[in-house]
Amino acid sequence: MKIISINAGSSSLKFSLFNMDDESVIASGLFERIGIEGSKYTIKFRGEKVSQEIELTNHTDAVKVLLDKLVDLEIIQSLDEIDGVGHRLVHGKDKYSESVLINDEVVSDLDKFKDFAPLHNPANILGINAFREVLPEVPMVGVFDTAFHQTMSPATYLYSVPYSWYQNYGVRKYGFHGTSHRYITKMVAKLLGKEEFRLISCHIGNGGSITAVKDGKCVDTSMGFTPLAGIMMGTRSGDIDPSIIPYVMEQEGKNASEVVDDLNKRSGLFGMSEYSSDMRDILEKCDLQDEKAIIARDKYVRRVVDYIAQYYVLLGGADVIVFTAGVGENSIPVRRQICEELACLGVKIDLDKNNKRGEVVKISTEDSSIQVYVIPTDEELMIARDTLDLINR
Amino acid sequence: MKIISINAGSSSLKFSLFNMDDESVIASGLFERIGIEGSKYTIKFRGEKVSQEIELTNHTDAVKVLLDKLVDLEIIQSLDEIDGVGHRLVHGKDKYSESVLINDEVVSDLDKFKDFAPLHNPANILGINAFREVLPEVPMVGVFDTAFHQTMSPATYLYSVPYSWYQNYGVRKYGFHGTSHRYITKMVAKLLGKEEFRLISCHIGNGGSITAVKDGKCVDTSMGFTPLAGIMMGTRSGDIDPSIIPYVMEQEGKNASEVVDDLNKRSGLFGMSEYSSDMRDILEKCDLQDEKAIIARDKYVRRVVDYIAQYYVLLGGADVIVFTAGVGENSIPVRRQICEELACLGVKIDLDKNNKRGEVVKISTEDSSIQVYVIPTDEELMIARDTLDLINR
Repeated sequence: MKIISINAGSSSLKFSLFNMDDESVIASGLFERIGIEGSKYTIKFRGEKVSQEIELTNHTDAVKVLLDKLVDLEIIQSLDEIDGVGHRLVHGKDKYSESVLINDEVVSDLDKFKDFAPLHNPANILGINAFREVLPEVPMVGVFDTAFHQTMSPATYLYSVPYSWYQNYGVRKYGFHGTSHRYITKMVAKLLGKEEFRLISCHIGNGGSITAVKDGKCVDTSMGFTPLAGIMMGTRSGDIDPSIIPYVMEQEGKNASEVVDDLNKRSGLFGMSEYSSDMRDILEKCDLQDEKAIIARDKYVRRVVDYIAQYYVLLGGADVIVFTAGVGENSIPVRRQICEELACLGVKIDLDKNNKRGEVVKISTEDSSIQVYVIPTDEELMIARDTLDLINR
Repeated sequence: MKIISINAGSSSLKFSLFNMDDESVIASGLFERIGIEGSKYTIKFRGEKVSQEIELTNHTDAVKVLLDKLVDLEIIQSLDEIDGVGHRLVHGKDKYSESVLINDEVVSDLDKFKDFAPLHNPANILGINAFREVLPEVPMVGVFDTAFHQTMSPATYLYSVPYSWYQNYGVRKYGFHGTSHRYITKMVAKLLGKEEFRLISCHIGNGGSITAVKDGKCVDTSMGFTPLAGIMMGTRSGDIDPSIIPYVMEQEGKNASEVVDDLNKRSGLFGMSEYSSDMRDILEKCDLQDEKAIIARDKYVRRVVDYIAQYYVLLGGADVIVFTAGVGENSIPVRRQICEELACLGVKIDLDKNNKRGEVVKISTEDSSIQVYVIPTDEELMIARDTLDLINR
């Protein structure tokens, strides 16, 4: 069985083609600048990389080129080999608590919920429509970023704001990165050989969220109504005093959306360091004793530690902490600093074991009170698995 | 030595007259609706209460009446007995890290910092000027709400927002309730007979803030740039996803200040319960199984627990947790619920000892890992102590 995982953005389309017999990646790639001058694609397969500038007027063009190339490059013999297409969908509001076979209702809901993910939901629809046009017979599955978090309790997902904002406008915590946190949860179950455990899953990359999981279910997560909330990120502020918004509006003569745009795109590591949103750059500057970089790094670590502390108590203790995504998988010094600040909870890591990047490794010592793992996340595989599962039902 | 503590609001003036020989309150009271029709005063002394409607055009009128009444009611024999006046001042920005003798510079700074506390700083100036006019020879001391928090590190007080917002407009965490948290810190030092300890001071009332204290110094506090941040309060939301602001603006056709006003005045316990901002009312409704009241209570408790958890890890463990202010001193079930959620940190309370209101009591058991106290706060006394201290230097 072969399944394609699709992540469609407003001008991009990422894909991974899986052989689900062994879950191996047959090919993967990116179509970018769709509908913009200079559009191109890159396809990786059998250790090779093919890249070409090509006119892509819209997502349907991109899907047509993708499928042609899969056959031309003999990655597959015919389109009949594609058994299903899985789409990463961002916002399913409180209607979708798991993955679904895509039908007209799902597409209409994505449109209905577009105020909640104004960049992503319309792009997701473009991706779905393109495949519907080009591969009308192949079943498609939608995998929502928000679904895993639907098990939160009302006291967790409701904000301490006028109740009417929830009732009338859907203001509540939704959470994101759900597919990644669910993948991590399943990996931990496999590693521990059981389904019952208290997990703190730290997806920390350019975006970042931390999720508390009990017995396989999300109990709380750091992102909120939007992906701006929670921990500090590459360019996003995370939680701040909301009063800062009207104050900065007045100081800078901006409107609220412009200030929130600053909080999304010019804050976080980038805003504090005035240098870069990339933790690797920040750590280089830290080595040079750059004061702002050191403060940015320390703040970043502190916000992760704050959420781990909260979730430790929420879960009544923790069995496992997992680091994943860009920083979590690769930043040896950041993992070390986080774990050192957790010493009072009995966390101990082995510096040699921590000295790895991008592979599954247990970095805690045998006498650590909490097992600490690095697990590379794989949202594409999770989407392919859900797709296979639903088309086989 | 007799000292008056003053807390001046925009249309009110609270006072407490202390005999500093034994720190007893000789008289206390409130002047309200100053400059508004129906102004009146209430003075309590020797178990009596005198109340009268009287025209009070401005704060100077109120101070004149106050001083006249103190003599008329034979609370003091003459105004010469008043050795000093201490003023509660709200915002000293990052200039004032301790209490100061009030001079022209202090008054001019209060005015300069008025953007940071638009309701409070101008009112504080009114209070100061009234006493300057009526008691020109008596030394006055200013005690800032923000001062105690000036020991926070840059990675704590800076937000993960564009650095220029700090540099150009002073956007940072200031913290409030400092006088209360400092009073609690001193009380704990007295109770433990030492100055070195890790304290989590929970000032939870209608407003609320939690402060982490190490060896007498503030390390972090939950309020931020303004008193809106941090834990959920009676009518204030505390921290929320900042993106909610532009979204609600659009839904309700409001401007940013109006939405932030909702977050200050129509959120918190009141907003979630749609019933009351008073924890006593909420708990009554909880007993009647009112769902929204239960969610509001649980959210309130959860946010307090979240901050205690964060500060526990920040401090590398805690020696003492203190509950103070309205809810902290009086709400037996809320204290119990908070402490039960802290069980995984080794907190254990004695339900009999917890069954008290408004008095100093240790409510933790002997084998609790953290000592838990209830300590009624006394900002007025703290102000009087600082005043005495500074005029005696």
